[in-house]
Amino acid sequence: MSNPTAAILVIGDEILSGRTRDANMHYLAGELATKGIDLKEARIVPDVQDAIVAALNALRARYDHVFTSGGIGPTHDDITADAVAAAFGQPLHVRDDARDLLARHYDRSGLEFNEARMRMARIPEGAVLIDNPISTAPGFSLENVHVMAGVPNIFQAMVASLLPRLTGGRPLLSQTLRIERGEGSVAKPLAALAAEFDDLSFGSYPFIQNGAYGTNIVVRGTDAGRLDAAMARLAAMAGAE
Amino acid sequence: MSNPTAAILVIGDEILSGRTRDANMHYLAGELATKGIDLKEARIVPDVQDAIVAALNALRARYDHVFTSGGIGPTHDDITADAVAAAFGQPLHVRDDARDLLARHYDRSGLEFNEARMRMARIPEGAVLIDNPISTAPGFSLENVHVMAGVPNIFQAMVASLLPRLTGGRPLLSQTLRIERGEGSVAKPLAALAAEFDDLSFGSYPFIQNGAYGTNIVVRGTDAGRLDAAMARLAAMAGAE
Repeated sequence: MSNPTAAILVIGDEILSGRTRDANMHYLAGELATKGIDLKEARIVPDVQDAIVAALNALRARYDHVFTSGGIGPTHDDITADAVAAAFGQPLHVRDDARDLLARHYDRSGLEFNEARMRMARIPEGAVLIDNPISTAPGFSLENVHVMAGVPNIFQAMVASLLPRLTGGRPLLSQTLRIERGEGSVAKPLAALAAEFDDLSFGSYPFIQNGAYGTNIVVRGTDAGRLDAAMARLAAMAGAE
Repeated sequence: MSNPTAAILVIGDEILSGRTRDANMHYLAGELATKGIDLKEARIVPDVQDAIVAALNALRARYDHVFTSGGIGPTHDDITADAVAAAFGQPLHVRDDARDLLARHYDRSGLEFNEARMRMARIPEGAVLIDNPISTAPGFSLENVHVMAGVPNIFQAMVASLLPRLTGGRPLLSQTLRIERGEGSVAKPLAALAAEFDDLSFGSYPFIQNGAYGTNIVVRGTDAGRLDAAMARLAAMAGAE
Protein backbone atom coordinates (compact mmCIF):
# COMPACT_ATOMS: atom_id res chain seq x y z
CA MET A 1 0.00 0.00 0.00
CA SER A 2 1.41 3.35 -0.91
CA ASN A 3 1.86 6.22 1.51
CA PRO A 4 -0.55 9.16 1.76
CA THR A 5 0.55 12.17 -0.32
CA ALA A 6 0.78 15.82 0.66
CA ALA A 7 1.53 19.35 -0.45
CA ILE A 8 2.57 22.44 1.50
CA LEU A 9 1.17 25.87 0.69
CA VAL A 10 3.10 28.77 2.21
CA ILE A 11 1.15 32.04 2.19
CA GLY A 12 2.98 35.32 2.54
CA ASP A 13 4.25 38.38 0.71
CA GLU A 14 7.24 38.47 3.07
CA ILE A 15 8.63 35.25 1.58
CA LEU A 16 8.15 36.31 -2.06
CA SER A 17 9.62 39.78 -1.45
CA GLY A 18 12.85 38.22 -0.17
CA ARG A 19 12.46 39.72 3.30
CA THR A 20 11.99 36.43 5.11
CA ARG A 21 13.49 33.05 4.35
CA ASP A 22 10.81 30.42 4.82
CA ALA A 23 11.64 27.81 7.46
CA ASN A 24 8.37 25.91 7.62
CA MET A 25 8.58 23.94 4.37
CA HIS A 26 11.87 22.38 5.35
CA TYR A 27 10.67 21.62 8.88
CA LEU A 28 7.44 19.98 7.74
CA ALA A 29 9.21 18.04 4.97
CA GLY A 30 11.32 16.32 7.60
CA GLU A 31 8.35 15.58 9.86
CA LEU A 32 6.30 14.15 7.00
CA ALA A 33 9.16 11.89 5.87
CA THR A 34 9.31 10.44 9.39
CA LYS A 35 5.53 10.02 9.50
CA GLY A 36 5.37 8.23 6.15
CA ILE A 37 3.42 10.95 4.33
CA ASP A 38 4.98 11.65 0.93
CA LEU A 39 5.47 15.36 0.26
CA LYS A 40 4.92 15.80 -3.48
CA GLU A 41 4.81 19.55 -3.99
CA ALA A 42 5.25 22.89 -2.26
CA ARG A 43 4.00 26.31 -3.31
CA ILE A 44 4.41 29.85 -2.06
CA VAL A 45 1.71 32.39 -2.93
CA PRO A 46 1.15 36.02 -1.90
CA ASP A 47 -1.49 37.40 0.50
CA VAL A 48 -4.05 37.57 -2.31
CA GLN A 49 -7.30 35.70 -1.92
CA ASP A 50 -7.67 34.56 -5.55
CA ALA A 51 -4.13 33.19 -5.58
CA ILE A 52 -4.66 31.31 -2.30
CA VAL A 53 -8.02 29.87 -3.39
CA ALA A 54 -6.67 28.71 -6.76
CA ALA A 55 -3.67 27.01 -5.17
CA LEU A 56 -5.80 25.42 -2.44
CA ASN A 57 -8.26 23.99 -4.91
CA ALA A 58 -5.53 22.63 -7.19
CA LEU A 59 -3.63 21.01 -4.32
CA ARG A 60 -6.50 19.62 -2.26
CA ALA A 61 -7.89 17.85 -5.33
CA ARG A 62 -4.53 16.29 -6.14
CA TYR A 63 -3.11 15.21 -2.75
CA ASP A 64 -4.36 13.46 0.36
CA HIS A 65 -3.30 16.36 2.59
CA VAL A 66 -2.57 20.07 2.15
CA PHE A 67 -0.72 21.90 4.93
CA THR A 68 -0.80 25.69 4.92
CA SER A 69 1.49 28.12 6.73
CA GLY A 70 0.77 31.78 7.39
CA GLY A 71 -2.02 34.34 7.31
CA ILE A 72 -4.08 33.43 10.39
CA GLY A 73 -3.25 36.39 12.65
CA PRO A 74 -5.37 39.43 13.60
CA THR A 75 -4.31 41.93 10.91
CA HIS A 76 -5.79 42.95 7.55
CA ASP A 77 -3.25 40.83 5.63
CA ASP A 78 -4.33 37.65 7.45
CA ILE A 79 -6.83 36.24 4.97
CA THR A 80 -6.11 32.52 4.99
CA ALA A 81 -9.28 31.53 6.89
CA ASP A 82 -11.36 33.60 4.45
CA ALA A 83 -9.62 31.94 1.50
CA VAL A 84 -10.11 28.42 2.86
CA ALA A 85 -13.79 29.10 3.54
CA ALA A 86 -14.16 30.47 0.00
CA ALA A 87 -12.33 27.50 -1.53
CA PHE A 88 -14.71 25.07 0.21
CA GLY A 89 -17.81 27.24 -0.17
CA GLN A 90 -18.30 27.19 3.63
CA PRO A 91 -19.40 30.08 5.83
CA LEU A 92 -16.82 31.63 8.14
CA HIS A 93 -17.91 32.89 11.54
CA VAL A 94 -16.62 33.35 15.08
CA ARG A 95 -16.88 30.01 16.82
CA ASP A 96 -17.63 29.76 20.52
CA ASP A 97 -14.86 27.35 21.52
CA ALA A 98 -12.18 29.31 19.66
CA ARG A 99 -13.47 32.60 21.10
CA ASP A 100 -13.45 31.14 24.63
CA LEU A 101 -9.85 29.98 24.26
CA LEU A 102 -8.80 33.46 23.14
CA ALA A 103 -10.88 35.23 25.81
CA ARG A 104 -9.16 33.25 28.56
CA HIS A 105 -5.74 33.90 26.99
CA TYR A 106 -6.22 37.68 26.80
CA ASP A 107 -7.77 37.73 30.26
CA ARG A 108 -4.67 36.02 31.69
CA SER A 109 -2.28 38.27 29.77
CA GLY A 110 -4.12 41.51 30.58
CA LEU A 111 -4.48 42.48 26.92
CA GLU A 112 -7.68 43.74 25.39
CA PHE A 113 -9.65 41.09 23.49
CA ASN A 114 -10.53 43.51 20.71
CA GLU A 115 -12.26 43.14 17.35
CA ALA A 116 -9.02 42.42 15.49
CA ARG A 117 -8.09 39.62 17.89
CA MET A 118 -11.63 38.23 17.59
CA ARG A 119 -10.84 37.63 13.88
CA MET A 120 -8.65 34.73 15.03
CA ALA A 121 -11.76 32.95 16.36
CA ARG A 122 -13.32 32.86 12.88
CA ILE A 123 -13.32 29.21 11.80
CA PRO A 124 -14.92 27.79 8.65
CA GLU A 125 -17.95 25.61 9.33
CA GLY A 126 -17.09 21.93 9.69
CA ALA A 127 -13.47 22.47 10.73
CA VAL A 128 -11.60 20.82 13.63
CA LEU A 129 -9.30 23.06 15.69
CA ILE A 130 -5.53 22.57 15.83
CA ASP A 131 -4.12 23.32 19.27
CA ASN A 132 -1.65 26.21 19.64
CA PRO A 133 0.20 25.84 22.96
CA ILE A 134 2.40 28.89 22.25
CA SER A 135 0.03 31.78 21.60
CA THR A 136 -3.43 30.11 21.86
CA ALA A 137 -5.00 31.29 18.56
CA PRO A 138 -5.86 27.94 16.96
CA GLY A 139 -5.24 26.53 13.53
CA PHE A 140 -7.84 24.25 11.97
CA SER A 141 -8.33 21.28 9.68
CA LEU A 142 -11.15 21.40 7.12
CA GLU A 143 -11.42 18.04 5.34
CA ASN A 144 -7.89 17.45 4.01
CA VAL A 145 -6.62 21.03 4.45
CA HIS A 146 -4.67 21.84 7.61
CA VAL A 147 -4.25 25.53 8.36
CA MET A 148 -1.37 26.64 10.58
CA ALA A 149 0.45 29.80 11.63
CA GLY A 150 3.50 31.19 9.84
CA VAL A 151 5.65 32.06 12.86
CA PRO A 152 8.06 29.10 12.91
CA ASN A 153 7.84 28.09 16.58
CA ILE A 154 4.03 28.28 16.47
CA PHE A 155 3.95 26.36 13.18
CA GLN A 156 6.10 23.63 14.73
CA ALA A 157 3.90 23.40 17.82
CA MET A 158 0.81 23.10 15.61
CA VAL A 159 2.44 20.37 13.52
CA ALA A 160 3.12 18.51 16.78
CA SER A 161 -0.57 18.88 17.72
CA LEU A 162 -1.81 17.79 14.31
CA LEU A 163 0.37 14.93 13.09
CA PRO A 164 -0.66 12.34 15.72
CA ARG A 165 -4.22 12.41 14.37
CA LEU A 166 -3.24 11.79 10.75
CA THR A 167 -2.70 8.31 9.38
CA GLY A 168 0.85 7.88 8.19
CA GLY A 169 2.54 5.21 6.14
CA ARG A 170 6.00 3.78 5.92
CA PRO A 171 8.65 6.34 6.92
CA LEU A 172 10.93 7.52 4.15
CA LEU A 173 14.38 6.17 4.95
CA SER A 174 17.59 7.44 3.38
CA GLN A 175 21.26 6.55 3.34
CA THR A 176 24.08 8.62 1.93
CA LEU A 177 27.40 7.64 0.38
CA ARG A 178 29.90 10.44 0.03
CA ILE A 179 32.49 10.09 -2.71
CA GLU A 180 35.42 12.40 -3.29
CA ARG A 181 34.95 12.96 -7.00
CA GLY A 182 32.50 14.62 -9.36
CA GLU A 183 29.16 13.02 -10.09
CA GLY A 184 30.03 12.76 -13.79
CA SER A 185 32.52 10.03 -12.91
CA VAL A 186 29.86 7.71 -11.47
CA ALA A 187 26.84 8.72 -13.50
CA LYS A 188 26.72 5.68 -15.76
CA PRO A 189 26.92 2.87 -13.16
CA LEU A 190 24.66 4.92 -10.88
CA ALA A 191 21.97 5.09 -13.58
CA ALA A 192 22.21 1.32 -14.05
CA LEU A 193 21.85 0.76 -10.30
CA ALA A 194 18.88 3.14 -10.13
CA ALA A 195 17.19 1.25 -12.97
CA GLU A 196 17.76 -2.07 -11.20
CA PHE A 197 16.49 -0.83 -7.81
CA ASP A 198 13.48 0.93 -9.28
CA ASP A 199 11.55 0.80 -5.99
CA LEU A 200 14.15 3.21 -4.52
CA SER A 201 15.04 6.76 -5.53
CA PHE A 202 18.68 7.67 -6.16
CA GLY A 203 19.77 11.28 -5.90
CA SER A 204 23.19 12.64 -6.79
CA TYR A 205 24.26 15.92 -5.16
CA PRO A 206 27.56 17.48 -6.15
CA PHE A 207 29.56 19.78 -3.93
CA ILE A 208 32.85 21.63 -4.10
CA GLN A 209 35.02 21.57 -0.98
CA ASN A 210 38.49 23.14 -0.79
CA GLY A 211 38.40 23.41 -4.57
CA ALA A 212 37.79 19.69 -5.10
CA TYR A 213 34.62 18.12 -6.48
CA GLY A 214 32.70 15.59 -4.44
CA THR A 215 29.27 13.97 -4.57
CA ASN A 216 26.73 12.81 -2.05
CA ILE A 217 24.73 9.92 -3.40
CA VAL A 218 21.47 9.58 -1.48
CA VAL A 219 19.28 6.51 -1.70
CA ARG A 220 15.70 6.83 -0.44
CA GLY A 221 12.94 4.32 0.08
CA THR A 222 10.69 2.69 2.64
CA ASP A 223 12.24 -0.81 2.80
CA ALA A 224 15.33 -0.92 5.03
CA GLY A 225 16.54 -4.22 3.57
CA ARG A 226 16.40 -2.93 0.01
CA LEU A 227 18.22 0.24 1.09
CA ASP A 228 20.98 -1.84 2.67
CA ALA A 229 21.28 -3.96 -0.47
CA ALA A 230 21.51 -0.88 -2.69
CA MET A 231 24.10 0.75 -0.43
CA ALA A 232 26.28 -2.38 -0.53
CA ARG A 233 26.19 -2.35 -4.32
CA LEU A 234 26.82 1.37 -4.38
CA ALA A 235 29.86 1.06 -2.11
CA ALA A 236 31.28 -1.73 -4.30
CA MET A 237 30.63 0.35 -7.40
CA ALA A 238 32.28 3.46 -5.94
CA GLY A 239 35.29 1.41 -4.82
CA ALA A 240 35.64 -0.19 -8.22
CA GLU A 241 35.52 3.05 -10.20
CA MET B 1 3.62 50.82 -16.13
CA SER B 2 3.68 47.78 -13.94
CA ASN B 3 6.73 45.63 -13.30
CA PRO B 4 7.38 42.33 -15.08
CA THR B 5 6.17 39.29 -13.11
CA ALA B 6 7.98 36.07 -12.31
CA ALA B 7 7.78 32.64 -10.71
CA ILE B 8 10.48 30.32 -9.40
CA LEU B 9 10.33 26.57 -9.94
CA VAL B 10 12.67 24.54 -7.74
CA ILE B 11 13.18 20.98 -8.97
CA GLY B 12 14.46 18.34 -6.60
CA ASP B 13 13.52 15.33 -4.48
CA GLU B 14 16.14 16.39 -1.94
CA ILE B 15 14.12 19.47 -0.98
CA LEU B 16 10.78 17.64 -0.69
CA SER B 17 12.32 14.78 1.32
CA GLY B 18 13.54 17.25 3.93
CA ARG B 19 17.21 16.41 3.34
CA THR B 20 18.16 19.82 1.94
CA ARG B 21 16.81 23.23 2.85
CA ASP B 22 16.39 25.23 -0.35
CA ALA B 23 18.42 28.43 -0.45
CA ASN B 24 17.81 29.53 -4.04
CA MET B 25 14.24 30.82 -3.72
CA HIS B 26 15.19 33.25 -0.99
CA TYR B 27 18.30 34.41 -2.84
CA LEU B 28 16.49 35.00 -6.11
CA ALA B 29 13.55 36.69 -4.37
CA GLY B 30 15.94 39.35 -3.06
CA GLU B 31 17.63 39.83 -6.43
CA LEU B 32 14.32 40.16 -8.27
CA ALA B 33 13.02 42.74 -5.78
CA THR B 34 16.12 44.85 -6.46
CA LYS B 35 15.73 44.41 -10.21
CA GLY B 36 12.07 45.43 -10.23
CA ILE B 37 10.71 42.04 -11.28
CA ASP B 38 7.73 41.03 -9.11
CA LEU B 39 7.98 37.47 -7.79
CA LYS B 40 4.40 36.18 -7.67
CA GLU B 41 4.74 32.50 -6.95
CA ALA B 42 7.22 29.75 -6.12
CA ARG B 43 6.86 26.00 -6.48
CA ILE B 44 8.91 22.97 -5.57
CA VAL B 45 8.35 19.75 -7.56
CA PRO B 46 10.12 16.37 -7.54
CA ASP B 47 12.47 14.93 -10.20
CA VAL B 48 9.52 13.62 -12.21
CA GLN B 49 9.12 14.75 -15.80
CA ASP B 50 5.32 15.04 -15.82
CA ALA B 51 5.36 17.14 -12.65
CA ILE B 52 8.03 19.47 -14.04
CA VAL B 53 6.29 19.86 -17.41
CA ALA B 54 2.92 20.60 -15.81
CA ALA B 55 4.40 23.22 -13.48
CA LEU B 56 6.45 24.81 -16.29
CA ASN B 57 3.46 25.11 -18.58
CA ALA B 58 1.24 26.57 -15.86
CA LEU B 59 3.85 29.11 -14.77
CA ARG B 60 5.22 30.21 -18.15
CA ALA B 61 1.70 30.96 -19.38
CA ARG B 62 0.93 33.05 -16.31
CA TYR B 63 4.11 35.08 -15.66
CA ASP B 64 6.62 37.07 -17.70
CA HIS B 65 9.54 34.98 -16.45
CA VAL B 66 10.02 31.54 -14.93
CA PHE B 67 13.33 30.76 -13.22
CA THR B 68 14.17 27.13 -12.53
CA SER B 69 16.72 25.70 -10.12
CA GLY B 70 18.12 22.17 -10.20
CA GLY B 71 18.33 19.07 -12.36
CA ILE B 72 20.87 20.07 -15.01
CA GLY B 73 23.83 17.90 -13.98
CA PRO B 74 25.20 14.70 -15.57
CA THR B 75 23.27 12.01 -13.65
CA HIS B 76 20.09 10.05 -14.35
CA ASP B 77 18.04 12.25 -12.01
CA ASP B 78 18.96 15.41 -13.97
CA ILE B 79 15.97 15.71 -16.28
CA THR B 80 15.22 19.43 -16.33
CA ALA B 81 16.50 20.02 -19.88
CA ASP B 82 14.37 17.09 -21.12
CA ALA B 83 11.33 18.49 -19.30
CA VAL B 84 11.80 22.01 -20.67
CA ALA B 85 12.23 20.65 -24.22
CA ALA B 86 9.06 18.57 -23.77
CA ALA B 87 7.10 21.51 -22.35
CA PHE B 88 7.98 23.64 -25.40
CA GLY B 89 7.79 20.76 -27.90
CA GLN B 90 11.39 21.48 -28.96
CA PRO B 91 14.06 18.91 -29.80
CA LEU B 92 16.93 18.47 -27.34
CA HIS B 93 20.37 17.68 -28.68
CA VAL B 94 24.04 18.23 -27.89
CA ARG B 95 24.94 21.71 -29.05
CA ASP B 96 28.41 22.50 -30.41
CA ASP B 97 29.10 25.62 -28.37
CA ALA B 98 28.05 24.00 -25.09
CA ARG B 99 30.06 20.86 -25.91
CA ASP B 100 33.14 22.94 -26.72
CA LEU B 101 32.90 24.81 -23.41
CA LEU B 102 32.73 21.50 -21.52
CA ALA B 103 35.48 19.86 -23.59
CA ARG B 104 37.88 22.68 -22.73
CA HIS B 105 36.87 22.53 -19.06
CA TYR B 106 37.48 18.78 -18.75
CA ASP B 107 40.68 19.06 -20.76
CA ARG B 108 42.01 21.68 -18.32
CA SER B 109 40.93 19.70 -15.27
CA GLY B 110 42.26 16.35 -16.54
CA LEU B 111 38.90 14.62 -16.12
CA GLU B 112 37.34 12.37 -18.74
CA PHE B 113 34.67 14.09 -20.88
CA ASN B 114 32.46 11.03 -20.84
CA GLU B 115 28.93 10.32 -22.07
CA ALA B 116 27.32 11.39 -18.79
CA ARG B 117 29.10 14.75 -18.81
CA MET B 118 28.11 15.21 -22.47
CA ARG B 119 24.47 15.24 -21.24
CA MET B 120 25.17 18.72 -19.88
CA ALA B 121 25.71 19.99 -23.45
CA ARG B 122 22.16 19.01 -24.45
CA ILE B 123 20.30 22.29 -25.00
CA PRO B 124 16.75 22.66 -26.35
CA GLU B 125 16.58 24.19 -29.83
CA GLY B 126 16.20 27.96 -29.78
CA ALA B 127 17.72 28.47 -26.32
CA VAL B 128 20.34 31.04 -25.30
CA LEU B 129 23.10 29.84 -22.94
CA ILE B 130 23.52 31.19 -19.42
CA ASP B 131 27.16 31.48 -18.41
CA ASN B 132 28.44 29.37 -15.50
CA PRO B 133 31.77 30.79 -14.30
CA ILE B 134 32.00 28.24 -11.46
CA SER B 135 31.79 24.82 -13.08
CA THR B 136 31.30 25.66 -16.80
CA ALA B 137 28.20 23.54 -17.58
CA PRO B 138 25.80 26.23 -18.83
CA GLY B 139 22.23 27.04 -17.98
CA PHE B 140 19.91 28.31 -20.70
CA SER B 141 16.97 30.58 -21.43
CA LEU B 142 14.22 29.31 -23.73
CA GLU B 143 11.72 32.09 -24.39
CA ASN B 144 10.66 33.19 -20.88
CA VAL B 145 12.03 30.17 -19.02
CA HIS B 146 15.50 30.46 -17.45
CA VAL B 147 17.09 27.18 -16.42
CA MET B 148 19.80 27.22 -13.77
CA ALA B 149 21.74 24.83 -11.53
CA GLY B 150 20.64 23.83 -8.03
CA VAL B 151 24.00 24.09 -6.23
CA PRO B 152 23.63 27.46 -4.50
CA ASN B 153 26.92 29.11 -5.48
CA ILE B 154 26.46 28.04 -9.12
CA PHE B 155 22.83 29.20 -9.06
CA GLN B 156 23.94 32.59 -7.76
CA ALA B 157 26.64 32.93 -10.41
CA MET B 158 24.11 32.09 -13.13
CA VAL B 159 21.65 34.65 -11.76
CA ALA B 160 24.44 37.22 -11.97
CA SER B 161 25.04 36.22 -15.62
CA LEU B 162 21.37 36.30 -16.52
CA LEU B 163 19.77 39.27 -14.77
CA PRO B 164 21.59 42.03 -16.69
CA ARG B 165 19.94 40.90 -19.93
CA LEU B 166 16.39 40.98 -18.54
CA THR B 167 14.34 44.16 -18.51
CA GLY B 168 13.48 45.15 -14.98
CA GLY B 169 11.07 47.65 -13.55
CA ARG B 170 10.89 49.75 -10.44
CA PRO B 171 12.72 48.12 -7.53
CA LEU B 172 10.56 46.96 -4.66
CA LEU B 173 11.39 49.19 -1.71
CA SER B 174 10.52 48.40 1.87
CA GLN B 175 10.67 50.05 5.26
CA THR B 176 10.08 48.43 8.63
CA LEU B 177 8.71 49.80 11.88
CA ARG B 178 9.29 47.62 14.90
CA ILE B 179 6.84 47.99 17.77
CA GLU B 180 7.11 46.34 21.15
CA ARG B 181 3.60 44.98 21.37
CA GLY B 182 1.43 42.36 19.71
CA GLU B 183 -0.01 42.98 16.27
CA GLY B 184 -3.55 42.71 17.62
CA SER B 185 -3.06 46.05 19.37
CA VAL B 186 -2.47 47.95 16.10
CA ALA B 187 -4.53 45.88 13.69
CA LYS B 188 -7.42 48.34 13.33
CA PRO B 189 -5.52 51.56 12.56
CA LEU B 190 -3.10 49.55 10.43
CA ALA B 191 -5.95 48.25 8.28
CA ALA B 192 -7.24 51.80 7.83
CA LEU B 193 -3.79 53.00 6.80
CA ALA B 194 -3.39 50.08 4.36
CA ALA B 195 -6.75 50.95 2.80
CA GLU B 196 -5.74 54.59 2.43
CA PHE B 197 -2.31 53.79 0.91
CA ASP B 198 -3.66 51.14 -1.43
CA ASP B 199 -0.71 51.48 -3.82
CA LEU B 200 1.53 50.06 -1.06
CA SER B 201 1.47 46.69 0.66
CA PHE B 202 1.46 46.50 4.46
CA GLY B 203 2.65 43.37 6.19
CA SER B 204 2.46 42.67 9.89
CA TYR B 205 4.89 40.09 11.33
CA PRO B 206 4.63 39.18 15.00
CA PHE B 207 7.52 37.87 17.03
CA ILE B 208 8.14 36.80 20.61
CA GLN B 209 11.38 37.97 22.20
CA ASN B 210 12.30 37.28 25.82
CA GLY B 211 8.70 36.26 26.40
CA ALA B 212 7.27 39.57 25.16
CA TYR B 213 5.23 40.07 22.00
CA GLY B 214 6.41 42.47 19.33
CA THR B 215 5.55 43.21 15.71
CA ASN B 216 7.48 44.24 12.63
CA ILE B 217 5.28 46.28 10.34
CA VAL B 218 6.72 46.25 6.82
CA VAL B 219 5.57 48.65 4.11
CA ARG B 220 6.47 47.76 0.53
CA GLY B 221 6.12 49.66 -2.72
CA THR B 222 7.98 51.20 -5.62
CA ASP B 223 7.49 54.92 -4.83
CA ALA B 224 9.96 56.15 -2.21
CA GLY B 225 7.92 59.29 -1.46
CA ARG B 226 4.77 57.33 -0.80
CA LEU B 227 6.72 54.94 1.41
CA ASP B 228 8.08 57.86 3.45
CA ALA B 229 4.58 59.31 3.80
CA ALA B 230 3.17 56.00 4.96
CA MET B 231 6.00 55.47 7.44
CA ALA B 232 5.43 58.92 8.96
CA ARG B 233 1.75 58.12 9.46
CA LEU B 234 2.62 54.70 10.82
CA ALA B 235 5.07 56.14 13.35
CA ALA B 236 2.47 58.67 14.51
CA MET B 237 -0.13 55.93 14.77
CA ALA B 238 2.15 53.64 16.75
CA GLY B 239 3.10 56.48 19.10
CA ALA B 240 -0.53 57.41 19.63
CA GLU B 241 -1.69 53.90 20.47
